[in-house]
Parts: sequence; structure tokens; C-alpha cells
Amino acid sequence: MIKAVLFDVDDTLYPSSKLAEEARRNAIRAMIEAGLETDLSEEDLYRELQEVVKEYGSNHPRHFDLLLRRIGADPEPKLVAAAVVAYHDTKFAYLKPYPDVVPTLMRLREMGFKLGAVTSGLAVKQWEKLIRLGIHHFFHEVVISEEIGVEKPNPKIFIEAARRLGVKPEEAVYVGDRLDKDIKGANRAGMVTVRIRRGKYRDMEPESDDDVPDFEIDRPRELLDVIRELAKD
Amino acid sequence: MIKAVLFDVDDTLYPSSKLAEEARRNAIRAMIEAGLETDLSEEDLYRELQEVVKEYGSNHPRHFDLLLRRIGADPEPKLVAAAVVAYHDTKFAYLKPYPDVVPTLMRLREMGFKLGAVTSGLAVKQWEKLIRLGIHHFFHEVVISEEIGVEKPNPKIFIEAARRLGVKPEEAVYVGDRLDKDIKGANRAGMVTVRIRRGKYRDMEPESDDDVPDFEIDRPRELLDVIRELAKD
Repeated sequence: MIKAVLFDVDDTLYPSSKLAEEARRNAIRAMIEAGLETDLSEEDLYRELQEVVKEYGSNHPRHFDLLLRRIGADPEPKLVAAAVVAYHDTKFAYLKPYPDVVPTLMRLREMGFKLGAVTSGLAVKQWEKLIRLGIHHFFHEVVISEEIGVEKPNPKIFIEAARRLGVKPEEAVYVGDRLDKDIKGANRAGMVTVRIRRGKYRDMEPESDDDVPDFEIDRPRELLDVIRELAKD
Repeated sequence: MIKAVLFDVDDTLYPSSKLAEEARRNAIRAMIEAGLETDLSEEDLYRELQEVVKEYGSNHPRHFDLLLRRIGADPEPKLVAAAVVAYHDTKFAYLKPYPDVVPTLMRLREMGFKLGAVTSGLAVKQWEKLIRLGIHHFFHEVVISEEIGVEKPNPKIFIEAARRLGVKPEEAVYVGDRLDKDIKGANRAGMVTVRIRRGKYRDMEPESDDDVPDFEIDRPRELLDVIRELAKD
């Protein structure tokens, strides 16, 4: 019997890839507007910024400095500040749950399920997202890789989430967007897995049997159909 | 003849002390709402936070972590994130110029004055403030202590600002809230000094002759009267 529903956060509950892309593009436009002199196009600059993010990681605090140095421009504080402001303003505009997330979480709680979030990244940053999304009160437990010391798809993080919610892994449904992280890990932990086709991994194909989800959905609310389906067994 | 008008930023152009106080108080309320267990009152917590800021400096990135450790609480990411979100939301609400700043700056430009900002702190952070305040386009030059390597009241930073604007120090009016930093430094540089009575140094008394301003005003727009007065000489 299913007793708990666990969620990935980025791209499962809000448009994380879209947010990052639009925020970075607006940051580049803001640097140009603030006087950045370069022969590179907006598109070229965006690609260079993507490489900076890939090389230094998405939590590096000085992407715009690094970008300016990389293209041989002076990392003027005015340009960096213009980028930071545009990045943050765009981020806050997109940091909203997908439209049917809140009613779905509410319905699941009403139905008596324990809810959890299992997410990768820095604990304070992930909590900040949940608070800004306005959905932190829905979760009975929030499990973040930094706190556990293992990353998805390591099954330990999924098993720890089930333990904290007081359920067995097989009594939990896990919903995530990435086959190679979310679905693989939750499958290995023995959970029922639901892939949500959202964000940049929307068209990813499974690379092994471990990556094959039990269910696929396009929208959070379809999860309620999955739960009903499982209740029939 | 006066050719340039230079401004301090914090508490001269926007309510910096008010912003910091309200943002910190709201951060504390958010930690309590998020489940902080402590016998300390909101007021006690605010005083502890003030001490953290004093000890580690206002640009230290982890004030809330330090506060929680100092009071013997676990620095849970959820509590820190709640504080960060409340702090930032409050900051953006108060990061607005005083009501008559924009018309005053506009009028001064129309009158043909060169305008400058002379401010202390980290260059990217100070630029970010000017951009968020929406007043960065008014200034012909922005001079920040981090870039020059000297802090107010060192007269060098004021002299450098005049040099960049192409005027002699005695052709510049300097407007600031702090007698011991703004007025002292601009007096030593040979500028005409205007003290604006705003923010937490509103009631400060001069400690030496160097700290005595040529003029005192309560509101930015009174600066226009000072300029008219000076034009008579």
C-alpha cells in the first residue's frame, strides 16, 4: 500500500531550466545595456556563460566576473552588478510552482499521504527555493544531498527519506524528471517511480533497465491518476 | 564657481539604516515562524544579530548561521533560508530613493552640473544598490572605496572623484550624512560640504573643526537652495 509521495524539486515542481536560461540571457542583455563592449553576439555570450557554469558549477558565486575575464573584457563592477540584478529579478519572476502543483500537493495531503522532497544541492539554497515557491509547509520531510552526504542516484538518499517519513521504500512513490538521477535512484531503492516529462531532460531516453520508470506523466496532477491506479492493486 | 555635486549613497539617497534594521528584524521573525526554539525574545535576538554584524562586518555572508551558533541553536538550513528570504524581500521593499532624490538629481543635471557618487563598500554591491535604486544613470562618475583603496574620511577618494569629473575640489559640493566620514573627508579635500540629517547619524555632533559642514539640510531638495545661495557669491 502506498503511504508516501516523494518529489524531486528542480524541473519537477517549478521550471528550473527555464528560470536558469532566462535569468542568464537577461543578465547578458543587462551587461550589454550597461556598456559591455564586445564583438560577440548575445548568443555567443550565452554559450560562453553556459561553459562557465559547466566548468565552475552552478553554485559558484562569480559567474559574471569569470565570463568577462574569459572574453577578455574588464570585469567592471558596474557590469557585474547589472548582470546580478537582472539575474535575480528574472529568477524571482520564474520561481513559481507549475500551476497544478499546489492543488496536487494539497489533495495528496487530504488523502492522508506523507509528503517529502528529495533534492540535490546546497541545503540553504534548496530550502530558500522551497520557501520562495511557497510550498515548504506541504512536506513532512525535506531531504537534501548536502545534508546526507550522497547524491542521486545513490539509493541511500531515497531510503533515508522513506525512513524519516516512517514508511518502507516500496510504500513510497517517487516523482522526478531525470531518468539517470531520480528514476534510477528511486528504482534502486525499491520505490514506485514516476517520471514527469518537464524541463531540459524531457526527451531523455533510458540508458539501462534501472532508468525505466513505472509510470510517465506530463503534469503534476496526473499523479493523482497514478495513485488511484496503484490503489487498485 | 560650483560645477559638480557629489553624493554619499547610504542614508543620503535612500534609507539604508532603516532598511538594515527592518530586514534584520523580519529575518528574526521568519526564523521564529520557521520553528526556531529559543528562550530569547525577538528584541534579544535582534541585539545578538547586531553584535554579529558588528563583529564580522556587514558584508559577511553568513550572519544568520553565526547568530544561531552564538545562541546555542542548531544552524538548520531551513531556519537560515527563512531568514535569508525575509531579509532579501524586506531589503527590496526599502531599496527605494527618498521621495525627492530623483527630481533633485534631474534638476541638477538640467542646471548643467556634473554629478558623482562617492561611496564606501564592495564595488559590485554598491553598483547593485545604485542600479536597484534606479539612479545609476544620473551620475557621471561613481567612485567606490574598494576600487580606490582608501576609505572615507581619507580626502584622496574625494579628490579622485573631482579629478574624474574634471573639476577642482573647491568647485564641488559634497552631500553626506556622516560628520566623521563624509563631512570630515570632503572638508579636508577642500569641497563645499552639506550635511543631510538622515538615518542613524542624524543627531551626531561634530568632534572637531574638520567635522563641521558648511551647510545642513533635512531633505535632498533643499540642496537646490544651497546651490542658489552659493551662486550668489
